[in-house]
Amino acid sequence: MNPNFLTIWFLICLSLQCVTTLASDPDPVQDYCIPNPKFGSIKTISHLLTLPCKNSSEATTDDFIFSGMKLIGNFSDTGLALIPVNPTVFPGLNTLGMSFVRADLKVGGINPPHFHPRATEIAYVVQGSVYSGFVDSTNRVFARIIEQGEAMVYPRGLVHFQMNVGKKPATIFGSFNSQSPGLQKIPSAVFGSGIKEELLEKAFGLSPKQIGKMRRRFDPERSN
Amino acid sequence: MNPNFLTIWFLICLSLQCVTTLASDPDPVQDYCIPNPKFGSIKTISHLLTLPCKNSSEATTDDFIFSGMKLIGNFSDTGLALIPVNPTVFPGLNTLGMSFVRADLKVGGINPPHFHPRATEIAYVVQGSVYSGFVDSTNRVFARIIEQGEAMVYPRGLVHFQMNVGKKPATIFGSFNSQSPGLQKIPSAVFGSGIKEELLEKAFGLSPKQIGKMRRRFDPERSN
Amino acid sequence: MNPNFLTIWFLICLSLQCVTTLASDPDPVQDYCIPNPKFGSIKTISHLLTLPCKNSSEATTDDFIFSGMKLIGNFSDTGLALIPVNPTVFPGLNTLGMSFVRADLKVGGINPPHFHPRATEIAYVVQGSVYSGFVDSTNRVFARIIEQGEAMVYPRGLVHFQMNVGKKPATIFGSFNSQSPGLQKIPSAVFGSGIKEELLEKAFGLSPKQIGKMRRRFDPERSN
Amino acid sequence: MNPNFLTIWFLICLSLQCVTTLASDPDPVQDYCIPNPKFGSIKTISHLLTLPCKNSSEATTDDFIFSGMKLIGNFSDTGLALIPVNPTVFPGLNTLGMSFVRADLKVGGINPPHFHPRATEIAYVVQGSVYSGFVDSTNRVFARIIEQGEAMVYPRGLVHFQMNVGKKPATIFGSFNSQSPGLQKIPSAVFGSGIKEELLEKAFGLSPKQIGKMRRRFDPERSN
Amino acid sequence: MNPNFLTIWFLICLSLQCVTTLASDPDPVQDYCIPNPKFGSIKTISHLLTLPCKNSSEATTDDFIFSGMKLIGNFSDTGLALIPVNPTVFPGLNTLGMSFVRADLKVGGINPPHFHPRATEIAYVVQGSVYSGFVDSTNRVFARIIEQGEAMVYPRGLVHFQMNVGKKPATIFGSFNSQSPGLQKIPSAVFGSGIKEELLEKAFGLSPKQIGKMRRRFDPERSN
Amino acid sequence: MNPNFLTIWFLICLSLQCVTTLASDPDPVQDYCIPNPKFGSIKTISHLLTLPCKNSSEATTDDFIFSGMKLIGNFSDTGLALIPVNPTVFPGLNTLGMSFVRADLKVGGINPPHFHPRATEIAYVVQGSVYSGFVDSTNRVFARIIEQGEAMVYPRGLVHFQMNVGKKPATIFGSFNSQSPGLQKIPSAVFGSGIKEELLEKAFGLSPKQIGKMRRRFDPERSN
Repeated sequence: MNPNFLTIWFLICLSLQCVTTLASDPDPVQDYCIPNPKFGSIKTISHLLTLPCKNSSEATTDDFIFSGMKLIGNFSDTGLALIPVNPTVFPGLNTLGMSFVRADLKVGGINPPHFHPRATEIAYVVQGSVYSGFVDSTNRVFARIIEQGEAMVYPRGLVHFQMNVGKKPATIFGSFNSQSPGLQKIPSAVFGSGIKEELLEKAFGLSPKQIGKMRRRFDPERSN
Repeated sequence: MNPNFLTIWFLICLSLQCVTTLASDPDPVQDYCIPNPKFGSIKTISHLLTLPCKNSSEATTDDFIFSGMKLIGNFSDTGLALIPVNPTVFPGLNTLGMSFVRADLKVGGINPPHFHPRATEIAYVVQGSVYSGFVDSTNRVFARIIEQGEAMVYPRGLVHFQMNVGKKPATIFGSFNSQSPGLQKIPSAVFGSGIKEELLEKAFGLSPKQIGKMRRRFDPERSN
Repeated sequence: MNPNFLTIWFLICLSLQCVTTLASDPDPVQDYCIPNPKFGSIKTISHLLTLPCKNSSEATTDDFIFSGMKLIGNFSDTGLALIPVNPTVFPGLNTLGMSFVRADLKVGGINPPHFHPRATEIAYVVQGSVYSGFVDSTNRVFARIIEQGEAMVYPRGLVHFQMNVGKKPATIFGSFNSQSPGLQKIPSAVFGSGIKEELLEKAFGLSPKQIGKMRRRFDPERSN
Repeated sequence: MNPNFLTIWFLICLSLQCVTTLASDPDPVQDYCIPNPKFGSIKTISHLLTLPCKNSSEATTDDFIFSGMKLIGNFSDTGLALIPVNPTVFPGLNTLGMSFVRADLKVGGINPPHFHPRATEIAYVVQGSVYSGFVDSTNRVFARIIEQGEAMVYPRGLVHFQMNVGKKPATIFGSFNSQSPGLQKIPSAVFGSGIKEELLEKAFGLSPKQIGKMRRRFDPERSN
Repeated sequence: MNPNFLTIWFLICLSLQCVTTLASDPDPVQDYCIPNPKFGSIKTISHLLTLPCKNSSEATTDDFIFSGMKLIGNFSDTGLALIPVNPTVFPGLNTLGMSFVRADLKVGGINPPHFHPRATEIAYVVQGSVYSGFVDSTNRVFARIIEQGEAMVYPRGLVHFQMNVGKKPATIFGSFNSQSPGLQKIPSAVFGSGIKEELLEKAFGLSPKQIGKMRRRFDPERSN
Repeated sequence: MNPNFLTIWFLICLSLQCVTTLASDPDPVQDYCIPNPKFGSIKTISHLLTLPCKNSSEATTDDFIFSGMKLIGNFSDTGLALIPVNPTVFPGLNTLGMSFVRADLKVGGINPPHFHPRATEIAYVVQGSVYSGFVDSTNRVFARIIEQGEAMVYPRGLVHFQMNVGKKPATIFGSFNSQSPGLQKIPSAVFGSGIKEELLEKAFGLSPKQIGKMRRRFDPERSN
């Protein structure tokens, strides 16, 4: 076999940013479909979920095991460390309709209001005490502190949030019923995305000055 | 036939608030399924989508035609008038996987940032000039002014918004690929739902005073 | 990057008529997936819905807005002008489970009995008076005149039709819950497709001469 | 247990024609769900697919076996005898996403152009020689004679037809990927359903007299 | 409101074993649907997933939090303790397309080969060292020891198994992308279900005596 | 057109084993999608379901008719001959959500306990007397002899089996509601796949010697 063909394909893909098209979450039609690493690095190309799969005879046990969340991830300035695990880092998940996340919260740390457009989430408290909740379509909040060994469900597409209210670090294992649940963080989606200021002022009843301040916080590049 | 049986059923339903369970949006298994009005008023009981259907021989043409959005609805304080049309007001839609809305915007009026957890939306401008956009998972905003005869798509579950930037009223016809798209308005879901203040302060970088002000605006009852 | 790679890909695609395979309408697994125009003209290659997508950083606002139906399309000999809008002309729709159509009817014009194998349709009357209806599985017709501002639902896969019965042109905005609803027009599918004449004679109780006449009307090429 | 409760339920159902609401064809969430016969005769109440199920401990082997198509059904005037098998006659199918049909054709008999709005069909020739085909969205017909042991696929929602062109009776076993595939027979749906004559004249290019003749054939009641 | 109506309903349900019909796992059409406890005890009636839901205004935070798996369940004779969590014990999950399980294994304990007909599973090791694997359609096994903090995916419907090979107890948190994944344990489904002995002898190449021994082990009641 | 481009593509595919990725069974978005044979032999490359499709104008009638099961297949040592028909041998099925199988059983022959992870099956007895059954999640078996003209349903994912108990050969036509139902044969999946012996001993209560014997039977290569 001529490696040049590989090279050609690889370069075509890379140069065209050839993010291939939709994989849907419904019933798979194969046992599994592990993207073929010969077609380029999955880690660095977003959305590369639907690469041609490996021949099943080349699949290995390690393709179906994820070992990258034994340790805590990097903390954000709200005291949150996320390790999202989807087919871009765990290719064995591809086409199987699930993904998951490890979330660690420092004492007092928060996971700001956010939602996943394409999945329900089960949050299982591995350790710690976490104020956890979601908001439904009638603007009712369902929230309380959940402890180690308890689990909460956040229905598909609804805004939810977490805060470590205990005296030691907290760890949560979250699982999703989509291989690509999506994520919109309210503060940055609304105030950090470049929506016209006038619309935000009217929507939130904030002054131009206040909007400006929030923009600088959530979208430092654009607001300068 | 003894009308008492009807009465019994009716009272059981009413008294128990018997919101029946899920109807999902995938392929229907009947031509249509119009909820049987004998089981109680659909309009006043939320979620009553899955009542037993009328026998198909009792369906009428008017069951499949909606005439209630010829006129503009009532305006909110942001200058928005919505007439959402789903199976609770247009029973013929039941089980068919679609619903729609008429939205009117006063000059300068806005439809605040919101999203539909369970549907993609096509917004067709019937008249007017509307600044219209959505935010994707990477916090990029896609927005510009759209005019009469143009249409914009808001992908499933993503935050979107509208503002009438023209000099006359604007009318939009929006359609959804779910009979129950759901709705979360960001300002009221976040600031009007009763999420712990401490979490909101940290999430948005606002002072307790500012959070308090927004609460009074979006959740006047709870904040007093 | 060497443009020859693009050329190679482009030529492979064109020369092989490489209509790529199914994209299904269920839940998307990405925010959106705009087919990458570098891979060839979408307009001229039927079914090219599942081309590799653009990298999301290259998506633009205009990808999500359709401006091509401000004007009326070309009228057929039954007085119907259709502008169907699906991902082949509005790539931003790709993977989002919806498409739409603008239909204009001259005075007295008709949209002959037809159905969409893969979608429910909402028909919203933008202007005019339209006799509109559908037939269910028990051969009952549900039809009446609908006016500006009214909407009718045609359940998935059922035969439906329209006729402008007013005194001025009519315009309808139709939306579908599939990005590829499909279309079978009864007159041409049955009499213009080349089904054996003997079968049609027995099915419709028409004489060979009458069948011949209809064939010439709906399939002029084959019947000569 | 008081049998009166059964009676009350039974009468409520019967008197209200309580056709319960949609069961969709996607993944079942139980092993099976056999409608409980205590709630009324399934055979005589159309659409009664979603009755409460039997407790699984009451299911019997015979619930999952269908014996009612060993013999030929009754022939129509086009020489076709159909035994459609769906959950109304074979309750064990309920929620499992499949149904089937035995079709017998006399010598020269036809199954007129029709389609199933909600299913793909596999037609397996048990005996005989059958001219069999379907029409696609571009009005191309795919048809030829198929013999005993051969199978043809009719894609979801597309018009198809059959004619016994052999010298002995033909038998076909058809299976569907929906428990309720639906059926629209073109001749009677179009000419026997009561669509306005003017529309049909324009659509098919037939004279009022010809339309009248076809109406008398396919809708004898309404046309008198 | 007259409590007798409640009683009537309750008795009808109990007396008829009215296991209501399918709830499917696809997209929900409501935020959530908590079965209404007024209609009978969910815990004791199998499959009672599709009871009418509570009015959303009656939902409480505790409906969405599960606290019943803080402690280990009861061990089987293979050293396995399972706490399966689905809508029968955690009603808030209803219609949301997910469920989960806590599995504890004694030192040397096993979870015998089994599969879930309706879900993919993510198994997250909370503590311990577990030999974990699955078999694909080509009879290849993918198995190795996984440690605390690692996760393995078992694709939908494929046989999988676990054994505690460490020196201390092991705990696994498993999540599913169905609210009712189903379960077939191979040893008891095959040897404990009453399949004709002759068939099993031929299928496994075992003697009547060996089959008899396995029957006594896995189906003690029937084999005596 | 330069045939070298074809060659390049063909070689890339062959050399990379480019099994393309998931095609799901939900609603198709095209009338049909016949994999383009120019891209390599479908028969010899497993899983090659999602090749680019032929342009619809190149589809032929024979693409939609399967003639390869008029004769009996090759018998296994349990007296079973299977001709599975899915898109790898009948490309016209691709994307249409169905597949089928012809199964012949010698007198006394068996189809060992197995299941299809991704489909419900309808088994129609073309000739013969067959002991046929399945096992549900509660380990109940539903089985009896079915005769020519009878049909049995095996719900999705549940273990089922067949044995010819008549005095002449038996033929079964099975159809599935997935184009790729999958197959796990219990004896070889469990005893022929290489699961650790210790786990199997504990799971089935068999001695190391017995396990060894079964391994030699179902996995002769690995056990030597």
